[in-house]
Amino acid sequence: MSGSTFGTLFKITTWGESHGRAIGVVVDGCPAGVPLSAPDIQQFLNRRKPGQSRYSTQRTESDLVRILSGVFEGKTTGTPISLLVENTDQRSHDYSEISQYYRPGHADYTYDAKYGFRDYRGGGRSSGRETIGRVAAGAIASKVLGTLGISLCSYVRSIGPVEISAFSREEITQNEFNMPDAKAAERAREFLEGCMARRDSAGGVAECIVSGMPAGAGNPVFDKLDANLGKALFSIGAVKGVEIGDGFAAARSCGTANNDSFYYDENGEIKKGTNHAGGILGGISDGSDIIVRAAFKPTPSVYSPQNTVNTSGENITVSIKGRHDPIIVARGVVVMESMVAIVLLDALMTGACAKLENLQKIWK
Amino acid sequence: MSGSTFGTLFKITTWGESHGRAIGVVVDGCPAGVPLSAPDIQQFLNRRKPGQSRYSTQRTESDLVRILSGVFEGKTTGTPISLLVENTDQRSHDYSEISQYYRPGHADYTYDAKYGFRDYRGGGRSSGRETIGRVAAGAIASKVLGTLGISLCSYVRSIGPVEISAFSREEITQNEFNMPDAKAAERAREFLEGCMARRDSAGGVAECIVSGMPAGAGNPVFDKLDANLGKALFSIGAVKGVEIGDGFAAARSCGTANNDSFYYDENGEIKKGTNHAGGILGGISDGSDIIVRAAFKPTPSVYSPQNTVNTSGENITVSIKGRHDPIIVARGVVVMESMVAIVLLDALMTGACAKLENLQKIWK
Amino acid sequence: MSGSTFGTLFKITTWGESHGRAIGVVVDGCPAGVPLSAPDIQQFLNRRKPGQSRYSTQRTESDLVRILSGVFEGKTTGTPISLLVENTDQRSHDYSEISQYYRPGHADYTYDAKYGFRDYRGGGRSSGRETIGRVAAGAIASKVLGTLGISLCSYVRSIGPVEISAFSREEITQNEFNMPDAKAAERAREFLEGCMARRDSAGGVAECIVSGMPAGAGNPVFDKLDANLGKALFSIGAVKGVEIGDGFAAARSCGTANNDSFYYDENGEIKKGTNHAGGILGGISDGSDIIVRAAFKPTPSVYSPQNTVNTSGENITVSIKGRHDPIIVARGVVVMESMVAIVLLDALMTGACAKLENLQKIWK
Amino acid sequence: MSGSTFGTLFKITTWGESHGRAIGVVVDGCPAGVPLSAPDIQQFLNRRKPGQSRYSTQRTESDLVRILSGVFEGKTTGTPISLLVENTDQRSHDYSEISQYYRPGHADYTYDAKYGFRDYRGGGRSSGRETIGRVAAGAIASKVLGTLGISLCSYVRSIGPVEISAFSREEITQNEFNMPDAKAAERAREFLEGCMARRDSAGGVAECIVSGMPAGAGNPVFDKLDANLGKALFSIGAVKGVEIGDGFAAARSCGTANNDSFYYDENGEIKKGTNHAGGILGGISDGSDIIVRAAFKPTPSVYSPQNTVNTSGENITVSIKGRHDPIIVARGVVVMESMVAIVLLDALMTGACAKLENLQKIWK
Repeated sequence: MSGSTFGTLFKITTWGESHGRAIGVVVDGCPAGVPLSAPDIQQFLNRRKPGQSRYSTQRTESDLVRILSGVFEGKTTGTPISLLVENTDQRSHDYSEISQYYRPGHADYTYDAKYGFRDYRGGGRSSGRETIGRVAAGAIASKVLGTLGISLCSYVRSIGPVEISAFSREEITQNEFNMPDAKAAERAREFLEGCMARRDSAGGVAECIVSGMPAGAGNPVFDKLDANLGKALFSIGAVKGVEIGDGFAAARSCGTANNDSFYYDENGEIKKGTNHAGGILGGISDGSDIIVRAAFKPTPSVYSPQNTVNTSGENITVSIKGRHDPIIVARGVVVMESMVAIVLLDALMTGACAKLENLQKIWK
Repeated sequence: MSGSTFGTLFKITTWGESHGRAIGVVVDGCPAGVPLSAPDIQQFLNRRKPGQSRYSTQRTESDLVRILSGVFEGKTTGTPISLLVENTDQRSHDYSEISQYYRPGHADYTYDAKYGFRDYRGGGRSSGRETIGRVAAGAIASKVLGTLGISLCSYVRSIGPVEISAFSREEITQNEFNMPDAKAAERAREFLEGCMARRDSAGGVAECIVSGMPAGAGNPVFDKLDANLGKALFSIGAVKGVEIGDGFAAARSCGTANNDSFYYDENGEIKKGTNHAGGILGGISDGSDIIVRAAFKPTPSVYSPQNTVNTSGENITVSIKGRHDPIIVARGVVVMESMVAIVLLDALMTGACAKLENLQKIWK
Repeated sequence: MSGSTFGTLFKITTWGESHGRAIGVVVDGCPAGVPLSAPDIQQFLNRRKPGQSRYSTQRTESDLVRILSGVFEGKTTGTPISLLVENTDQRSHDYSEISQYYRPGHADYTYDAKYGFRDYRGGGRSSGRETIGRVAAGAIASKVLGTLGISLCSYVRSIGPVEISAFSREEITQNEFNMPDAKAAERAREFLEGCMARRDSAGGVAECIVSGMPAGAGNPVFDKLDANLGKALFSIGAVKGVEIGDGFAAARSCGTANNDSFYYDENGEIKKGTNHAGGILGGISDGSDIIVRAAFKPTPSVYSPQNTVNTSGENITVSIKGRHDPIIVARGVVVMESMVAIVLLDALMTGACAKLENLQKIWK
Repeated sequence: MSGSTFGTLFKITTWGESHGRAIGVVVDGCPAGVPLSAPDIQQFLNRRKPGQSRYSTQRTESDLVRILSGVFEGKTTGTPISLLVENTDQRSHDYSEISQYYRPGHADYTYDAKYGFRDYRGGGRSSGRETIGRVAAGAIASKVLGTLGISLCSYVRSIGPVEISAFSREEITQNEFNMPDAKAAERAREFLEGCMARRDSAGGVAECIVSGMPAGAGNPVFDKLDANLGKALFSIGAVKGVEIGDGFAAARSCGTANNDSFYYDENGEIKKGTNHAGGILGGISDGSDIIVRAAFKPTPSVYSPQNTVNTSGENITVSIKGRHDPIIVARGVVVMESMVAIVLLDALMTGACAKLENLQKIWK
């Protein structure tokens, strides 16, 4: 088992290594009749593409997606959508050296422990390039959600010690960090220059807000909406922490402050006065915005010398070569958004017949 | 779908409502030949039993477990183990009132949104009593892990603003909060008395440390060990945040500080000098302790008056009655530990044949 | 893994051994709002109950079902429905002898090979009593299907060499074999008396016809409706062959004869002139009756002496004691019908959002 | 849901349409360390390749497979193996006509009923070309099974009324029908010439025998080995009937004749004197040969005129054009063998830790 399939009805299966021939995903279970073309997906992939600023890896990949199946006459057919991106700029020789030792903070050692050997070129399957498949699938999920009036907005809240203190949705795409606060982005830039000068890397926190999510999606017990979101976000390589709504702050709060009061709005609809819960109660969406946050660790590949071991039984010191992002969170934002979209669509699909009357609405 | 099944090979299915006849779990896929008797399970259930201190609900349930299947002559047979606990102290009349309105911070509204109606007695399926099944299953998983030399230790790190500043494993079972620091427990007690006097409740943070976990368990992509742990912990009703290793602190760290160096110890085994990663690299265990943390929100049932809506379209003010824990995290510790044990055992089982040589070791 | 869970959205998990305390099933994912009470389920269980004629085992079990969860105020809540039947007439001493040898045609040897040991009392988990859980779950599925206008009719087509040559739906419940042909039932009775006199047993073929199934349920590839029906029927202990529509006869036919022509009926609806396909084309229901057939092997427990081995390494001769049905197929009919109902309901639920417009019908 | 994923630990996901750009499969969960190269897979694909005799479609496809991921330095890495075959000879214009009507015996109508529209070119996803992915995956599964000493042999037992009456393993690959009896093949040839002259098609029965399967694989209840084999075989488009061991003949047999006696052989190993059960007892392999049979319906595409309906509401008569096999079973043999191999490998992997001692063998 390598666990490359995710989802119950909207099910994705990713494949591919950093320096293999290609990277791809099979999206099975997408409803039929969704207008879809390569540019819909390319637009998402471009948001995670490397080489777009001096703060992302200088590997130059065009990451052009091809739709190999599942779309006919401009619409999804309901059958598997196979998407493929070729790897073009593979400097495998950069990596031959690391076949002999285990990089700290990477999966080199654990892959060997699990599988007995590994494709060491660029991290192989553990490379961030694996997320191409997730983002391509997320583009499709987002498109479907859009037809239901559901939209996602994701951005970076902090880089190292630099946190946002303002929020402008327009600003998010205006700086290389996807931060909604231009001044914070400026400070992040200065901070990162310092890191890079020290041949070091930095972490950060990303957030995703979902608007328009109807109440009633998700499940009571193990497949709580928060549980599946948690799994989805922790499945992103660099994520070490996840919060829903107030997250860890809720643990320091008290019940009277943390509870969100309900009220009827002017249209007679049930609303909440606050949203500490992040849009989920008892594992099920409550109709308010869904809010999730993820902590991304610093890029483990740093140019500074580090202590580690080689496969010949020796303790050694290494300096990682190759081309690496000094920060992951900026490009991670679209990966996070994609995973959230996939979870939400799957929850809507699996929960469609929770009431007998819904089953009858479709089949009777 | 109500998502009451969890796991791939070690698979559990829980059932039951707070005020139904009974609560239970079916554990399918437990290896055959594990010595198991009711006391093994009872011991875990007693750790979550209500009414053990003035800081937990005064509902008095003996929570005696019965093994209905899957054990023969003192050993598991490999077939489903059905476990049942009867509900005895059901004061349903306490709850008849809440059928007419939605309690803030509870799942009342979202259940109605999903299912059209709900079993409102004591929260029905969304009650904390659902976790009895998880703990019973966790007792079995822990027993199996024990035969592999894997042990779990879990405790409360903080209650409201009170954090531990010392660690004594023996102390954990000596105070009513499962805190490893007697002084912190004393301060927590004072803090909680204040909360209760204000008819309020508090949140807290719990942590679980796993020792003896071998390297090589878990998976590269969606079924990363951290992903499945994240799902498991977020599936606990009150959890709003989860961290692996340094968690959110990693987002403020830099690569050189956050990476854990490898070295060979005196026995020629690969070890790590630090454990910021919490024992998982690239989704796979690295042989060091696994460390997870979960933020529990304050009990949503508070006796203070709160604004909400009733099902007749009116904005109203309510005061929750019934018997409720002023804090969830203390009893949540064993639930967390159970879910972690279940995830780890399933990872060991599903990953047993990751190498061809292992498959041959079993079947050739 | 012992594979005791079945279904994707309408998911059942059975548990229990022949001579354990009880037998049961957890039905997860049943839509909320279905009127359900114990008699709905008891009615199905009574159809498989032992001791109803001299052609079924003389074990006397009342097989009274208790609903432990998931039903509130007479309706399903959408959460797991736990059903339990106690084992009352357990003459375990009848079976102590078989702990030492492997009965031919039984699972004794294979359980030992898989698990290392077994609960030998009455076959333990491999006993036909395991099907109680299936039938209880099937009763619920049938009830839901009924609200969609879908009904199932199942009966015995042949016993040993005796085949039906007439079809009367009313007759099915009038004889002890569930045959739709009174004369065939009479001949079957004579045939079975001969078998029993020779201390032997007989096999038979059962058929299930589903009326009112809408077109469009099922899936194109691995989860074809026929594939899931096939799995469901082969999961019944004694089934050794399954046919959809014409089955093996289709292999001897030619395309022009085997194809079913379409035509528009007087209401402008698409119909088929024949139904060789058994209501399924390309894995998806075509709106005509679904027709499946299953071959049940003779009861392996026969009183005649048989050669086998004991666990001490000796070849021995044994005569099976205990109380056994001389034929399985008669009681198997309701098990077959239950499994078919479960598969069909799951197909309707998982396929509800196959079109984007359906997803929008529910959630927009 | 379109159900394009199969298996629990050895998991395959197929994608692609008859006239799309390519056809492929992702094989996830293959153990690491299996020597694998494209020729291993090509050899299997060549067995199902069209255009090899006048009894298979004249579409000329080279069906060359490319390995896109999951293999490094000649061995599987444990991560997903992505395999791709391009469609080269796509005469889509042959099919434009069928967009307007529903071919009898095909999935045209049911796809429209499920999805609202369809990729009508060559049957789209319902085309036999979908099985390319299965065969490619089956080649890998067979390779792994081979390292455990397990081998599969599959062949055609009958075509229309022509049945084999001799068995020569060498003969199987010597005739265009994969029959183990040269004389039967000669009669089948004559029979098929007659069919083709009448512009008709024929069905047939295929069989697969597995040697070397150890006892103890499979599961007691829903995931019985026979159940998963049944699902696997019924998921092949043209299959309408499946038998394990004696199959339907067992229904006409009696217990004393149908039971297989056990005995100890000269090496003290438990063997069976006969194999009516087809190598499976109680859902678990018994160590003897596994025997399965599948009935393939006649090719539904026949050149003779047929009655059907168009999408404009009219009853019409059509003559199918295009290039079609007059018989499916001959090429179906390798598809059947592939599905059997996939099921068996998955059973061995999922059942590896059925005993506690096995779990300890791997992880302690």
